[in-house]
Amino acid sequence: MLEFLRPVIRAMTGYAPGEQPRQSNVIKLNTNENPYPPSPRVIEAIREALTGDRLRKYPDPLGTEFRQVAGRILDVDPDGIVIGNGSDDLLTILTRAFVPEGGRIVSPTPSYVLYRALAEIQSAQLATVSFCPNWDLPTPWPIPQAHLTFVANPNSPSGTVVNISRVETLADELRGPLVLDEAYADFAEQNALLLARTGRVIVTRSLSKSYALAGIRFGFAVTTPQLARELVKVKDSYNCDVLSLAAATAALTDQAYMRTSRARILATRQRLSDALLRLGFTLTPSEANFVWAQRPEPLRPLFDELKRRGILVRYMVYEGFGEGLRITVGTDEEIDRLLDELAQLV
Amino acid sequence: MLEFLRPVIRAMTGYAPGEQPRQSNVIKLNTNENPYPPSPRVIEAIREALTGDRLRKYPDPLGTEFRQVAGRILDVDPDGIVIGNGSDDLLTILTRAFVPEGGRIVSPTPSYVLYRALAEIQSAQLATVSFCPNWDLPTPWPIPQAHLTFVANPNSPSGTVVNISRVETLADELRGPLVLDEAYADFAEQNALLLARTGRVIVTRSLSKSYALAGIRFGFAVTTPQLARELVKVKDSYNCDVLSLAAATAALTDQAYMRTSRARILATRQRLSDALLRLGFTLTPSEANFVWAQRPEPLRPLFDELKRRGILVRYMVYEGFGEGLRITVGTDEEIDRLLDELAQLV
Repeated sequence: MLEFLRPVIRAMTGYAPGEQPRQSNVIKLNTNENPYPPSPRVIEAIREALTGDRLRKYPDPLGTEFRQVAGRILDVDPDGIVIGNGSDDLLTILTRAFVPEGGRIVSPTPSYVLYRALAEIQSAQLATVSFCPNWDLPTPWPIPQAHLTFVANPNSPSGTVVNISRVETLADELRGPLVLDEAYADFAEQNALLLARTGRVIVTRSLSKSYALAGIRFGFAVTTPQLARELVKVKDSYNCDVLSLAAATAALTDQAYMRTSRARILATRQRLSDALLRLGFTLTPSEANFVWAQRPEPLRPLFDELKRRGILVRYMVYEGFGEGLRITVGTDEEIDRLLDELAQLV
Repeated sequence: MLEFLRPVIRAMTGYAPGEQPRQSNVIKLNTNENPYPPSPRVIEAIREALTGDRLRKYPDPLGTEFRQVAGRILDVDPDGIVIGNGSDDLLTILTRAFVPEGGRIVSPTPSYVLYRALAEIQSAQLATVSFCPNWDLPTPWPIPQAHLTFVANPNSPSGTVVNISRVETLADELRGPLVLDEAYADFAEQNALLLARTGRVIVTRSLSKSYALAGIRFGFAVTTPQLARELVKVKDSYNCDVLSLAAATAALTDQAYMRTSRARILATRQRLSDALLRLGFTLTPSEANFVWAQRPEPLRPLFDELKRRGILVRYMVYEGFGEGLRITVGTDEEIDRLLDELAQLV
């Protein structure tokens, strides 16, 4: 049956997610998970939803209750919210809604490598625009003609943020929709929700990072009610399950918990950054829950040795930007262990 | 931003899932949910997985443990199993893997209406082939040239089954892959797993029906390891969450529970069928957890009146096959209520 596959699929290497080791003694600083557990309200909400009767029935396909809560907390129209099985699901939905075969997706580079896989699956082309040396977007934007432009803000692997005023001018320059992938926005100082509300950009959000819910897969998009109605046509009817809907709704209601967790992560990020600089790494100014650490000598041996010592970080290479280690901000204890090992190794 | 949508999306009406009423006193016989709760082992497994540490971390992207259990129980190669966020997710993945823009999907009709939506989103054409009056597939098969052929077996709304030997000859006739959508196969007398194992067909399964897990969204495909590797490229990396993976794995281990639940449903189906025949309905021979009931006079008023009386069934019309009520096999009490009302109404 392989011969019937679309050639683009055969040709793909496929997106390789970060390692999920099965041993529990590994210090996992490679996939930007939150080192702290989700709000106790989340566990409570899942327990309440955990009845045979809820499990045997289909969930609400539109996630009405979640959208009402999210709309209130984020001050956006609930009808402009589309729920997704992780924000990756929404990036897929947006790609399928806007990008034809042979179409063009544009993204600054280096950025989230999934954008390339999304383009490949859709038989579209991914055109990339290099970030400026200071991680700003070039002005004017060189490829305004695109079926979809993805800007991860904060960006991965750099953790850097494009100022919201630049996002606004980019939206004006583009002849096509602009998607702000705000998976890490809760760790940053600004976001584009105001622009999403008026339909100038589309914002996607994840509950994996700031709400510590990577395990339950939940994300959402914020746009206008008109566009939300169209995107719903593209999503699987029941793309979010009853437990993750309950979890996501509860997580959003506990903003105080999220802010506390965020504050701890930001404090540890500062400490990690200072220490890495002292150890001779070069860092970008991160507004996310990870840092991008580079140094002149090859980093692969350092990555391998850290792994051997039970510490997983992400090793990445980007053409024109060299290699680096993307290090998730873990707990203080985890970061201490990392820094101890690094002090011996560099 | 609406003007940038692919025209096919604007033109779509979108798939309308069956109603999910919020009132709990409604007798819900409209979306083929299992009337009995899932195995207690499922609840237990979710409870065990419900820790802050599991929720904050990404799930295993490939569902290794689930695949090992499913492989053992179904006697298939675990590496030939692809996990999905409901079997709809797998139907989407298969469509994207095999069908180009302008391509052709073929399905017998009347059948699962989602196939049309999948074709539309992919800018492909859905060509349908009418079932024979006895709900068999016409021989020879009139449209062997297709990028993908979907056969729901048992079929919805009819509940009928195409004999496995006819499935085999169809696979030989086709110049393209054949997908057996076996969402209801656990209620039937035969299935195509043996054919899937050798790569002659691709089988998709759902845990929504026989395992009573519509709320947690879990399905899987069975094919060869070679093709499974390609399909994984198309799926979202983390398409199944940690709780649904735990639930699905536990559900499969409790085959005795599933068989007991199945036996109850089949006994009730027999009773429901006999009673409907006595009330003057025409029925197809169902091997699923629902029946397809027709009668000469218009059925819409009957559907509306049942709804007014708190009983939801599914009203459907198919060109060339007329209208009918698709009635899920509920508990004995629910079916008694339905039959009481029907006896007053017809």
